[in-house]
Amino acid sequence: MTDSTELVGRLVERVQLLEDKLDIMQIISAYGPAVDSGSAEAVAGLWTEDGVYDVDTGSMTGHSEIEAMVHSRNHQSYIHGGCAHLVGPPHIVLDGDTAVATCHSQLVMHDGESKTNRVARITANRWEFARIDGQWKVTVRTNRLLDGRAEAREILAAGVTAQP
Amino acid sequence: MTDSTELVGRLVERVQLLEDKLDIMQIISAYGPAVDSGSAEAVAGLWTEDGVYDVDTGSMTGHSEIEAMVHSRNHQSYIHGGCAHLVGPPHIVLDGDTAVATCHSQLVMHDGESKTNRVARITANRWEFARIDGQWKVTVRTNRLLDGRAEAREILAAGVTAQP
Amino acid sequence: MTDSTELVGRLVERVQLLEDKLDIMQIISAYGPAVDSGSAEAVAGLWTEDGVYDVDTGSMTGHSEIEAMVHSRNHQSYIHGGCAHLVGPPHIVLDGDTAVATCHSQLVMHDGESKTNRVARITANRWEFARIDGQWKVTVRTNRLLDGRAEAREILAAGVTAQP
Repeated sequence: MTDSTELVGRLVERVQLLEDKLDIMQIISAYGPAVDSGSAEAVAGLWTEDGVYDVDTGSMTGHSEIEAMVHSRNHQSYIHGGCAHLVGPPHIVLDGDTAVATCHSQLVMHDGESKTNRVARITANRWEFARIDGQWKVTVRTNRLLDGRAEAREILAAGVTAQP
Repeated sequence: MTDSTELVGRLVERVQLLEDKLDIMQIISAYGPAVDSGSAEAVAGLWTEDGVYDVDTGSMTGHSEIEAMVHSRNHQSYIHGGCAHLVGPPHIVLDGDTAVATCHSQLVMHDGESKTNRVARITANRWEFARIDGQWKVTVRTNRLLDGRAEAREILAAGVTAQP
Repeated sequence: MTDSTELVGRLVERVQLLEDKLDIMQIISAYGPAVDSGSAEAVAGLWTEDGVYDVDTGSMTGHSEIEAMVHSRNHQSYIHGGCAHLVGPPHIVLDGDTAVATCHSQLVMHDGESKTNRVARITANRWEFARIDGQWKVTVRTNRLLDGRAEAREILAAGVTAQP
């Protein structure tokens, strides 16, 4: 019996790790659809109550600041003109009840006059997660433009060279 | 024994859910390679026999109409000029034997004369799935251009705000 | 007991397959962050010692040649100007201790003068994997430009029409 119990116990752990990874992928894949549809609460709800969204253009802390960004005149003009926040498949490093996911994102914007689209931003993304009451939430997301600045490369390097 | 049997039974359910999600990801990740290589049967085979592919430029129903789109003069000129239908990581909401996946897609086209590429379309995607004889198939895929139209934003919002 | 033992044995196999797929996704999602940050060892380490990276502009064999590409004047000028190697969600076909993953990639480059980004390349990707000492590694990655050449379409077709 011990062998079997141990085997099942090990399986439970392996399944938990797989679920953790898919849960984190599921949160990251919600961001683009939520932000491009102006679903402010759905965007903010990906973060913890006091979570940080640190963008090169400024940093937001907590749900109300993140929601305010979605409701802002700037963001509303983007989504009413047509835009796509495309977030790439994340590289995920789990460490118990925390995790770091690293990926790229692109902001593609539609120009209604010329009927063309342009890649307005390419960005390095670092997503830090914590498991809170059994649910994964973003604690800090850091975005830096890939325009040659070292900070963006450092974000990408950290995600693929440090393993727990 | 009961405890162990229950534990294993619960594990079976959890593994099934993980498999369902990966199966759905696997179908969506087949679309781009299939359509950009003109693999008409592989494209159509992602859908049920009477599945619907509802694009803003028109709606197709059933394998023969989807295959006809791939064989069309238009699509053939795209793929022989060079193009990439890039479909983003999906946000998946499972509900037993049905599922909805929401994501963005991009159509990037090569221009042979200028040797440049342009993002011809950015699109909101809603994929509806059903499990048919144990296999996941697309029942309806709805694509709407992210050019400012409300319909595209509604597709994205529906995918991340409604949980079963 | 036999029933339960068989059930657990079958579960172990199913969990192993799920882990294999996520491990392969994890390798592919490391490429972009590694190459765009100039993390030469992390890039090369995705391949086997004698792994091949076959690009339309030339083929590299083994870690030292792959690292040399990352250290090259060309690549360094790309990443110091700002660039994003965006690798799409892969379609994975497992076959025991080998696997093939098929996807698209994009190279988006920043132009510091005009402050714009352009899609410099759209590419068909075939990744071949082997499990070596319990760890998945890339044995051959083949990239071909989606500029109309038949070879690129053949890579994409092979990945979605041949199932083991």
